[in-house]
Amino acid sequence: MKRGFGSDNHSGISPEVLNAIYDANIDHALAYGDDEYSAKVEEIFKQHFGEQSSVFFVFNGTGANTLCIDAMCRSHEAVVCAESAHVNVDECGSVQRVVGCRLLTVPTPDGKLTPELVKTQLHGFGVEHHSQPKAITITQSTELGTLYTLDEIKALVDLAHEYNMYLHIDGARIANAAVALGCTFKEMTTDLGVDIISFGGTKNGLMIGEAVVFLNPRLAESFKYRRKQALQLCSKMRFIAAQFEAYFKDDLWRRNAEHSNKMAQLLYNEVKDIPFVKVMYPVQSNGIFVQMPREKWTELQKHYFFYDWDLDNDVVRWVCSFDTTEDDIEKFVEVIKRF
Amino acid sequence: MKRGFGSDNHSGISPEVLNAIYDANIDHALAYGDDEYSAKVEEIFKQHFGEQSSVFFVFNGTGANTLCIDAMCRSHEAVVCAESAHVNVDECGSVQRVVGCRLLTVPTPDGKLTPELVKTQLHGFGVEHHSQPKAITITQSTELGTLYTLDEIKALVDLAHEYNMYLHIDGARIANAAVALGCTFKEMTTDLGVDIISFGGTKNGLMIGEAVVFLNPRLAESFKYRRKQALQLCSKMRFIAAQFEAYFKDDLWRRNAEHSNKMAQLLYNEVKDIPFVKVMYPVQSNGIFVQMPREKWTELQKHYFFYDWDLDNDVVRWVCSFDTTEDDIEKFVEVIKRF
Amino acid sequence: MKRGFGSDNHSGISPEVLNAIYDANIDHALAYGDDEYSAKVEEIFKQHFGEQSSVFFVFNGTGANTLCIDAMCRSHEAVVCAESAHVNVDECGSVQRVVGCRLLTVPTPDGKLTPELVKTQLHGFGVEHHSQPKAITITQSTELGTLYTLDEIKALVDLAHEYNMYLHIDGARIANAAVALGCTFKEMTTDLGVDIISFGGTKNGLMIGEAVVFLNPRLAESFKYRRKQALQLCSKMRFIAAQFEAYFKDDLWRRNAEHSNKMAQLLYNEVKDIPFVKVMYPVQSNGIFVQMPREKWTELQKHYFFYDWDLDNDVVRWVCSFDTTEDDIEKFVEVIKRF
Amino acid sequence: MKRGFGSDNHSGISPEVLNAIYDANIDHALAYGDDEYSAKVEEIFKQHFGEQSSVFFVFNGTGANTLCIDAMCRSHEAVVCAESAHVNVDECGSVQRVVGCRLLTVPTPDGKLTPELVKTQLHGFGVEHHSQPKAITITQSTELGTLYTLDEIKALVDLAHEYNMYLHIDGARIANAAVALGCTFKEMTTDLGVDIISFGGTKNGLMIGEAVVFLNPRLAESFKYRRKQALQLCSKMRFIAAQFEAYFKDDLWRRNAEHSNKMAQLLYNEVKDIPFVKVMYPVQSNGIFVQMPREKWTELQKHYFFYDWDLDNDVVRWVCSFDTTEDDIEKFVEVIKRF
Repeated sequence: MKRGFGSDNHSGISPEVLNAIYDANIDHALAYGDDEYSAKVEEIFKQHFGEQSSVFFVFNGTGANTLCIDAMCRSHEAVVCAESAHVNVDECGSVQRVVGCRLLTVPTPDGKLTPELVKTQLHGFGVEHHSQPKAITITQSTELGTLYTLDEIKALVDLAHEYNMYLHIDGARIANAAVALGCTFKEMTTDLGVDIISFGGTKNGLMIGEAVVFLNPRLAESFKYRRKQALQLCSKMRFIAAQFEAYFKDDLWRRNAEHSNKMAQLLYNEVKDIPFVKVMYPVQSNGIFVQMPREKWTELQKHYFFYDWDLDNDVVRWVCSFDTTEDDIEKFVEVIKRF
Repeated sequence: MKRGFGSDNHSGISPEVLNAIYDANIDHALAYGDDEYSAKVEEIFKQHFGEQSSVFFVFNGTGANTLCIDAMCRSHEAVVCAESAHVNVDECGSVQRVVGCRLLTVPTPDGKLTPELVKTQLHGFGVEHHSQPKAITITQSTELGTLYTLDEIKALVDLAHEYNMYLHIDGARIANAAVALGCTFKEMTTDLGVDIISFGGTKNGLMIGEAVVFLNPRLAESFKYRRKQALQLCSKMRFIAAQFEAYFKDDLWRRNAEHSNKMAQLLYNEVKDIPFVKVMYPVQSNGIFVQMPREKWTELQKHYFFYDWDLDNDVVRWVCSFDTTEDDIEKFVEVIKRF
Repeated sequence: MKRGFGSDNHSGISPEVLNAIYDANIDHALAYGDDEYSAKVEEIFKQHFGEQSSVFFVFNGTGANTLCIDAMCRSHEAVVCAESAHVNVDECGSVQRVVGCRLLTVPTPDGKLTPELVKTQLHGFGVEHHSQPKAITITQSTELGTLYTLDEIKALVDLAHEYNMYLHIDGARIANAAVALGCTFKEMTTDLGVDIISFGGTKNGLMIGEAVVFLNPRLAESFKYRRKQALQLCSKMRFIAAQFEAYFKDDLWRRNAEHSNKMAQLLYNEVKDIPFVKVMYPVQSNGIFVQMPREKWTELQKHYFFYDWDLDNDVVRWVCSFDTTEDDIEKFVEVIKRF
Repeated sequence: MKRGFGSDNHSGISPEVLNAIYDANIDHALAYGDDEYSAKVEEIFKQHFGEQSSVFFVFNGTGANTLCIDAMCRSHEAVVCAESAHVNVDECGSVQRVVGCRLLTVPTPDGKLTPELVKTQLHGFGVEHHSQPKAITITQSTELGTLYTLDEIKALVDLAHEYNMYLHIDGARIANAAVALGCTFKEMTTDLGVDIISFGGTKNGLMIGEAVVFLNPRLAESFKYRRKQALQLCSKMRFIAAQFEAYFKDDLWRRNAEHSNKMAQLLYNEVKDIPFVKVMYPVQSNGIFVQMPREKWTELQKHYFFYDWDLDNDVVRWVCSFDTTEDDIEKFVEVIKRF
């Protein structure tokens, strides 16, 4: 399938990452993370997130998010999230099944929670008929391609801690956020008091692999058992570890994310003045959401695969990837403009 | 880490499999299994298991086993298994958490269930205080390196079906069993009436990837949702599909399994006459269990990593892999004989 | 505590019901529902709901609702409900924990779903990332004291069945609804195609006891096991059965519900013209929701216990019971008018 | 049904208990345990179990046991129990579904665990593939009518605490045990270091109602939420509280239990010398297990209902109750002797 704008998980493996898998494919290694590759990359994560942090690898984003919530909440507790959160709309009820707790959803204009929005769900404390709010989860960058500023994250962390709650970041696209904000991972998380992170790799050039990063050490206590029990422990772990090592080496994560963000800007610039195209949200990372007449976007889908996002309002989603080229965009826009 | 006998998941990726990942790493592909690689390999599975069969990929063996049981049983039902079954002792309660049902365990002399042993658990039907037996799960080859003959499997299938139950095979090492029995996968499963299989790949040369194969089509009905909800849906699925394609190409699965079985025989022949070594079970696939004085096996562990299997009886496990060499065995036995 | 308007479960046991417990307290009876009292009352339920129906007793309303949803949905499926539904806001996440599925909530002006409102949640069918809508649950009478007409229920039943879904009624106050609508239980449920009902008893004069009534026989198949497993099987069942027998004898259910509805009308008439009192919803069963200045309702709470319902808007709830007297209302209104 | 020996939950309600329900049936009371009856009986429980203890009422024994285990263990942990434990064989997998954890079962000769038997399950600590042993549960008196001495309980408590585990007593028949041992509840539990108790009421004269008694205060922390979420919170709680108040008043619990134990002794004396009857276990509380030829016990079942206990060995169970009379026994034995 030719390159398109369907999703950043339509792209393949970053060559550096695949080479790292090759290089790790020698001799034997202990399974389940007791290998030298894992030990090494755990150190690298500490460099990025601070000495107190710890990292555990999982297979996929749903696994990372669900297990982060599992680490924060028991079944009688609850997590506040945006109505548009991936964990709410795109994971087939994983949290409900695996953790058994409620998600307290809040409608948002742009995929972003605010302290005011979160507070609408902070009640019923101490009342046994109500799930007890115990965590806030935000997505950075959001499902709508928007970004939280560091101050906005800090305000949510402070609110969470004031209520004896935790703050989780679904960082499926955390690299895109970091480069867009021009900050380090640590500045965006540890330094603000964030408790736990789903640290994405797959959407930014890995083959298979995500990481759960604990910044609050208490949350990690029984994680290794719960990861195993929840089907997320990889046997040949060295090959996930090796991917992450390559991901951090020479800032590959940054180069990939910078590129996909830049491509999204380019695409935005190319389409923003087309009369029948309306860009719905600020283009702050690697995704762009546009409204256009149905006959036009369905026609376009004959040439390129992409998802409709909001059928009621004829909004579709285009996502750029680490391997998107200027040529890809030029040809795509050409087709649009032909209409 | 040098090659040893700790586990068949200590070995790496079969070169043919890794090359297939490389080859699949071009352009874009739809995610979640809607890609061409998946379509192609699904056909290959049909060739091996019959037209009625269907296949779904998952990440790991615990995922495959748990989701197979989830496909057969609801929480008030139960699965009969050997006390030594991986699903009982080595998965940290995944079935209990994810399916919520009971395992009805039976002690066995050699890791193998028989109709007589299973029948000890087939009671309480219709009584609401008792979990209702709904499935039998066997491991082929077993956790103790032993094998079910085709007749033995057939007898268990017939028993299961007589009681309106299902038969599942945990086939983490199903390739080793097939080559040892000199039969095809179909002859060992579909033709005998087996309902569902955890079809292992990782222990025989894949990087990450197992398959759930449905022979009984009714069981597959809601599987795609339940796989997603249980955290086992891979986004860049083409890379799992490509591995399995390579696995079947030119019978790689067979060549790898034949080799590891043969190495286990070689190892067996080398140690069976050592006076202080007692081989515990028939060596029928790629694992060998030996009893030896504690001071000897702990001394050996300083040179090679392997697991103690039964501390009370000083039994340890050695496993051969697709990449085990005659030289590996020679050196290993040399150390043992030095004692 | 003197009689007040806090809840219909603040009242005690209807004398006829308590006498029935006395009368059943002779000799021995088989446990778990295999007794003669249960057999007899199961017949009575059939008279009220039709020959195809079946009934199972449970302990409480949360048990009834959760197990009804469990009978309709597996964990990857979902239930559409009003945001104000008891099952959503007042059961501490029982559905999420015990069934493991999502609730798809819809904001409503008056606690009532409509086909239009439900349809906003009917999408994503066949897409594995989305919980599959499988049931609609409505509360009759609603948590806000309002009523569905028979036509309105029929429209929702038809919608449900059109989408291969089920319709459940949370009937914690179903008796109040039936008398308000002047219809039989059968006319309000079986005749409209309703699939399953939480049939309340406790709020209308029972001590402990609710019933799950299956109108769709297929849903009942494994219910007896799942009730037991979910902690809702009573051992000395004859005492729940006896209560329900008394409940139906001489239409006790109707007399009790008529009385509490009538008392709510009386209370409504007494307060509707008080200048600082605004009645929020039509008073159609035994509850009344009023808005009044905070200093007034908090002052009133010093004399009578009742719940604030919506703190942001200073709405409180008053509920009448089978044992509420005209004198109770007179005195209550006197205190209000004193302000 | 005439009185027989089927189960102690075939008997009805102790008259004093039923009178207490009557007496509590005046005016209104707050729901869910915030009433005065509950407050009063909570104090009574403290007198019996010590100042640090706390009590929560639930509906039934399965609820009590499951929620006790839920208070001690998370899903990746495990509970050691006798193979014959009610929680293992008679609750349809409630623990597996509601807690999601494993039961580690041990065969026993007489229904009683010993430190030696428990230790066979105490391994795998720190290994993520294995459920982590976290609690021991014993039944007092046991499912086989036998008793733990205080020293035997103490030894198990000490073992549990040595391993950082908890000890739970399933006390469905704890009153029978206390009178048999001639000790107080406190001497049998709190003073020995027991952590948590399922305190039975129903089998010894209550209508509906069991209690969870926390001796280890830390375990109670989130219990009120988890009881609600697991469907075990009663709305008209005053009627459970009133039953327990009557149960403790004038030592009703003791008188009832003494009587049923005495009746079991009487029955034992009457049958022990019948040639074809073999009493299987010491008769230490209110149950007696006898082996007799199948044609005889099936013939006897035509006259009296009772359960076969072990079909393979033709063992049946007879249970005496607080309302069993000498006359009941005389007539029962007469029928047996007639064979």
